Amino acid sequence: MNIRFAVLTVSDRSSRGERADASGPALVEIIKAQGWDVVHQDILPDDLLMLRETLSAWADRDDADVILTTGGTGFSPRDVTPEATRAIIERDAPGLAEAMRAASLFKSPHAMLSRAVTGIRGKVLIINLPGSPKAAVENLQIVLPALEHAVKLLRDAPDAEAGHNLQTA
Amino acid sequence: MNIRFAVLTVSDRSSRGERADASGPALVEIIKAQGWDVVHQDILPDDLLMLRETLSAWADRDDADVILTTGGTGFSPRDVTPEATRAIIERDAPGLAEAMRAASLFKSPHAMLSRAVTGIRGKVLIINLPGSPKAAVENLQIVLPALEHAVKLLRDAPDAEAGHNLQTA
Amino acid sequence: MNIRFAVLTVSDRSSRGERADASGPALVEIIKAQGWDVVHQDILPDDLLMLRETLSAWADRDDADVILTTGGTGFSPRDVTPEATRAIIERDAPGLAEAMRAASLFKSPHAMLSRAVTGIRGKVLIINLPGSPKAAVENLQIVLPALEHAVKLLRDAPDAEAGHNLQTA
Repeated sequence: MNIRFAVLTVSDRSSRGERADASGPALVEIIKAQGWDVVHQDILPDDLLMLRETLSAWADRDDADVILTTGGTGFSPRDVTPEATRAIIERDAPGLAEAMRAASLFKSPHAMLSRAVTGIRGKVLIINLPGSPKAAVENLQIVLPALEHAVKLLRDAPDAEAGHNLQTA
Repeated sequence: MNIRFAVLTVSDRSSRGERADASGPALVEIIKAQGWDVVHQDILPDDLLMLRETLSAWADRDDADVILTTGGTGFSPRDVTPEATRAIIERDAPGLAEAMRAASLFKSPHAMLSRAVTGIRGKVLIINLPGSPKAAVENLQIVLPALEHAVKLLRDAPDAEAGHNLQTA
Repeated sequence: MNIRFAVLTVSDRSSRGERADASGPALVEIIKAQGWDVVHQDILPDDLLMLRETLSAWADRDDADVILTTGGTGFSPRDVTPEATRAIIERDAPGLAEAMRAASLFKSPHAMLSRAVTGIRGKVLIINLPGSPKAAVENLQIVLPALEHAVKLLRDAPDAEAGHNLQTA
């Protein structure tokens, strides 16, 4: 089963070209090693408005099943990826974020500082990953075993019925 | 100590009579085996508005201590039980949902896809459980050891004082 | 590295002088044993409005790095510390609360009833702890290894840039 990914690196310095983006390519490598596709890839600064617009636009194009972000999930004042994500998801899926944090705590107590959000917009799952290439890859590995089932469920129902149900909210 | 339960099965197919409801009766059996009571039981389709209305009406009747839902907590577009629950709770109680997901991860990585919400409306605890009879029962067993203490605390304070405190929100 | 704490005991009875506050002093002792400072300490009743006002005022004075609350995180109708905290934080930091609950579950299933919230306002981390002195101290110990890194990150960026980013929300 193919899964289509979009990968968004969130970093002020990488977006200005001051630092090479190592996390995005590391995630793409894992995805391709699974035989899956990457349909979009971009780098944005830690700007709430830009992140919200890009995440919602990517989700609404409906050509990706999963959007991965890397970066902006920590405690620095500029870290607002979780806020951008929460603003545009329609349904919360906290179990993925909880599982990533719980598993990462076995490596470092700093894992409890990850503010990553995971949720659904339309038929697209959005997953915040940490900014360091090592932590981003480790966290993706934690949720990997659940992704095929997640995407199967997201694709399950006909558009009309799903749309109707969400509009009655 | 007696605990009074209401059990709501959430399933499009069961609500249309196309599939027998196995989860609701399985939960009722566990509750009765503990010597506790079931005061309401019903089956509803995955409809956000109907779920919100039934959950809030049941909570406000004040004849149940705990409302269990089973179904509608996954990733299918029709799954909106967590959204209905979040819309009507007054106080979040995330530890029960976190504990259910964490314990269930030892059985399957798919447990991280549960979007179950647990929270409080008035003096009533509302707990979302998965839709499959096996998973619903397993998840109920995880929170069972905390339920007597939870209900004791919910019943603790006089109505007037509690009401006043919530109204100052 | 010094960390500056504010400690708020939340208890109707202690605020009326009917019961000595044991949790606040127990937390202060742990903080001082680490060589850190306590810049404010107070006792408030379980009143949502008063808690919101005090928590936001303390955070906005910018003389503390971490605000600890103890009490009001349970299921009693008067317990509204999490609601007061959620109302005044700007960024959610759920990993600390999740870690406290997960670690506390090894001691008692009642740990899943903790509704503690952890989050950030400005450059200040706010952490809800349980009301009993023993549980408050145990929970503080769980997050202690991450606090220096957390505070370093919160202090990281210049005011202007951080302020700008939050205002674009």
